Amino acid sequence: MNKAMDIERWGIFELALTGPEVGNPFLDVTLQAEFRQGEQSFQVDGFYDGNGRFLIRFMPNQEGNWEYVTRSNVAELDGRSGQFTCVAPSPDNHGPVQVHNTYHFAYADGTPYFPFGTTCYAWTHQGRELEEQTLATLAQTSFNKLRMCVFPKDYVYNKNEPEHYPFVRDAAGTHDFTQFNPAFFHHLEQRLADLARLGIEADLILFHPYDRWGYATMTPEEDFRYLRYVIARLAAFRHVWWSLANEYDFLLDDKPMALWDQFFQLVQEADPYGRLRSIHNGRIWYDHHKPWVTHVCVQSSAVKKATEWRDTYQKPIINDELEYEGNNPVGTWGCISAHEEVHRFWTMVTRGCYAGHGETYVHPEDILWWSKGGVLHGESEPRIAFLRGILEAAPGGLEPMRHPSSTSWDRISGSQNGAYRLFYFGEYQPSAWAMGLPEDVPFTVDLIDPWNMTITRLPHTFHNAAQIDLPGKPYLAVRIQSAA
Amino acid sequence: MNKAMDIERWGIFELALTGPEVGNPFLDVTLQAEFRQGEQSFQVDGFYDGNGRFLIRFMPNQEGNWEYVTRSNVAELDGRSGQFTCVAPSPDNHGPVQVHNTYHFAYADGTPYFPFGTTCYAWTHQGRELEEQTLATLAQTSFNKLRMCVFPKDYVYNKNEPEHYPFVRDAAGTHDFTQFNPAFFHHLEQRLADLARLGIEADLILFHPYDRWGYATMTPEEDFRYLRYVIARLAAFRHVWWSLANEYDFLLDDKPMALWDQFFQLVQEADPYGRLRSIHNGRIWYDHHKPWVTHVCVQSSAVKKATEWRDTYQKPIINDELEYEGNNPVGTWGCISAHEEVHRFWTMVTRGCYAGHGETYVHPEDILWWSKGGVLHGESEPRIAFLRGILEAAPGGLEPMRHPSSTSWDRISGSQNGAYRLFYFGEYQPSAWAMGLPEDVPFTVDLIDPWNMTITRLPHTFHNAAQIDLPGKPYLAVRIQSAA
Repeated sequence: MNKAMDIERWGIFELALTGPEVGNPFLDVTLQAEFRQGEQSFQVDGFYDGNGRFLIRFMPNQEGNWEYVTRSNVAELDGRSGQFTCVAPSPDNHGPVQVHNTYHFAYADGTPYFPFGTTCYAWTHQGRELEEQTLATLAQTSFNKLRMCVFPKDYVYNKNEPEHYPFVRDAAGTHDFTQFNPAFFHHLEQRLADLARLGIEADLILFHPYDRWGYATMTPEEDFRYLRYVIARLAAFRHVWWSLANEYDFLLDDKPMALWDQFFQLVQEADPYGRLRSIHNGRIWYDHHKPWVTHVCVQSSAVKKATEWRDTYQKPIINDELEYEGNNPVGTWGCISAHEEVHRFWTMVTRGCYAGHGETYVHPEDILWWSKGGVLHGESEPRIAFLRGILEAAPGGLEPMRHPSSTSWDRISGSQNGAYRLFYFGEYQPSAWAMGLPEDVPFTVDLIDPWNMTITRLPHTFHNAAQIDLPGKPYLAVRIQSAA
Repeated sequence: MNKAMDIERWGIFELALTGPEVGNPFLDVTLQAEFRQGEQSFQVDGFYDGNGRFLIRFMPNQEGNWEYVTRSNVAELDGRSGQFTCVAPSPDNHGPVQVHNTYHFAYADGTPYFPFGTTCYAWTHQGRELEEQTLATLAQTSFNKLRMCVFPKDYVYNKNEPEHYPFVRDAAGTHDFTQFNPAFFHHLEQRLADLARLGIEADLILFHPYDRWGYATMTPEEDFRYLRYVIARLAAFRHVWWSLANEYDFLLDDKPMALWDQFFQLVQEADPYGRLRSIHNGRIWYDHHKPWVTHVCVQSSAVKKATEWRDTYQKPIINDELEYEGNNPVGTWGCISAHEEVHRFWTMVTRGCYAGHGETYVHPEDILWWSKGGVLHGESEPRIAFLRGILEAAPGGLEPMRHPSSTSWDRISGSQNGAYRLFYFGEYQPSAWAMGLPEDVPFTVDLIDPWNMTITRLPHTFHNAAQIDLPGKPYLAVRIQSAA
């Protein structure tokens, strides 16, 4: 019987057991535990952590007493039981993020969560100095989600070897895909803990095509084992999201569509907590209607289609790659202006959807934020923080404006929640605005300059059907709120 | 026998005859002439011009002697014959514009014609003072095509009565659609002549939905008679193009799609010269594959689809309404920034297509350029003139760049003609550029700023596969030409 201890709600209870080191414990030893509180029970996989050490991690979702008992094909790991007490969460712990009101997100305690993420694909493979610099940068930004790969990356600007490899590797560089490398995962878990401390959700990318080590071309059996191992280790982290892949479609020659479905189903089955699940496209979109997709993650510059995507999938939409701010000269990707990055963010958000940031300014040592982290060189991040502030001051998730007999909402972007309205005019510069104002409510009007980050409250209160004069300049927004 | 006279090639020979005034000569009298030169002959409709005056207009397409003979159901107009000599055109007369090399245009003498048009829908219905101001403005711009309606217009900002009505009208305001008003057409012809003097093609819009006089809801028989009359009067003007309608689809309740096909077929049959024929959409595109459509006229903000439209229709593409520069507060149309207007022009042109201008700044007397003319208030026109200058310095019409394995050309816009390249980066700001450079030719590079209208020749000559450093700012263009 394990000694009773207090674990906060949505924290991690970790049971460490000692078991056999002979043979290959990754393959040979099965280990699960059942955690129970009243009628509620969870089946949780344990995992081998090397050196005869076996771990079972569990995130309790309710306060009170929990009991557990293990099952294993090894006697010394089987039938181990115990209990612990789950106590109230600490103030910054709002629980895992979940889908809320079909198109939005909230923490488990009901606190709204508006994703404003960025992308550092390979930041955990850069060594301590750069990784700590990345964390210091993140601490100064308002990003609250990070797209990051489990595996290291081989691509333009990404030619350095990682410090750790996810599988055991011999001197000749040959990987043994039957043996995970605990040191790799200890490091990854440290970085996940660092993100948790900063309040940043970890959108963990499980596969990606940019590879020279063989991780992208493992067999399905190896893939399945890898997924189960990652889930056993990391699903208890309340801030982990599963992104099945970055640009999964560039792997379709090796991993056909049906296999991606199987991956999703495995993740759904193996993860006791139902963490968020998505998949990121290159050119070919996955069918996000499939029931195991919790929210739609897309790569697209066509930000005015956001409302259409929302209607199509009836799930939250995150355009995590509306292209990266930068000046990358290779191909034509990764080189939109900061102004355009901000414009696309505003367009997504004022259509009731969400967006993600990335930055690709070329660097003498190939340290581009989008993959390695480091520091930001661009101009969009403070503007994105400004937009996040506006959204967090809104009464809740925004719904796109509709006007069935007009093409207006194809042109400008408008959203609402009750009497609250947030319009974004983009390249349009009407001298006045009357459409879509709330009726029968006196309201205040703020003129917002998304680039210059100013909010100007108009001096008087308006009433329904009023027309608001505008400055006739492009790239402005208007916020309308009940004056009551 | 008419007295012999000299008419320049592509000029107008006009035969005036006197006939009956009794009854309704518009309905009762038929009049045609055959014009012949050697093996070549043209059947040309005459028309009644009021006061017993019947006219036949003919544009000779070849120098030399032409003979004609009339046919009529009225004895005094029948069998009238004569001849004239067609001489070399005057220096500014290059003949009518025709489709050239599938996607482009040229005058009949082979001079390339690059359409850079604007829109003044109802400018000929505004009275002498404003119409002359419009002409003075056009004389100062580089626009070489004007979209204009035959009929007056009833719409927001367009509530004034016209000075002339196309049909005879009684004191109660009832129109007699069986009798045309010659004074109306004399005025229209004067304005067409004014445009010809300025070198501006008249893209004449035959129908449109914005009407309070009944012109949009005539019967098919009245429509057909109207079309035949307009063609008989105006087809001989070498600078007239037939635009079947503005926003034809907003008339579909009254004029179903099959009727639009009939209109096109009538125009094709009745016009001896095969003037250019197009039709402009609101929301529903006409099927521009149909053989009577000579070039594709569209209204669309989706300028990056230009290459796709070109591939689809295999005809010249003119996006005549990529939205208007302005600050119109009604709806959300007519309010893009000058910067966006210029951006869309560049995107169309550097994809081997063409674009049209319009301007809708609100005005205390409702004089908006887009409909009434007057003066320009915006900032895009000089930039469009700058772009026209660049295109006219190119070796000919541009073809869009292709790169089968890349999405680059979905992002940036590139075009070529032989070793000539014109790239436009829009919202992209790569720090360098290497793609699509001509091989095995030493070349010069010009960095172009479309907004500031500067062309900066880089100081040295480049060779194939060279990479060009760019300033890393958005909305720039690059021109590459053989240095040989």
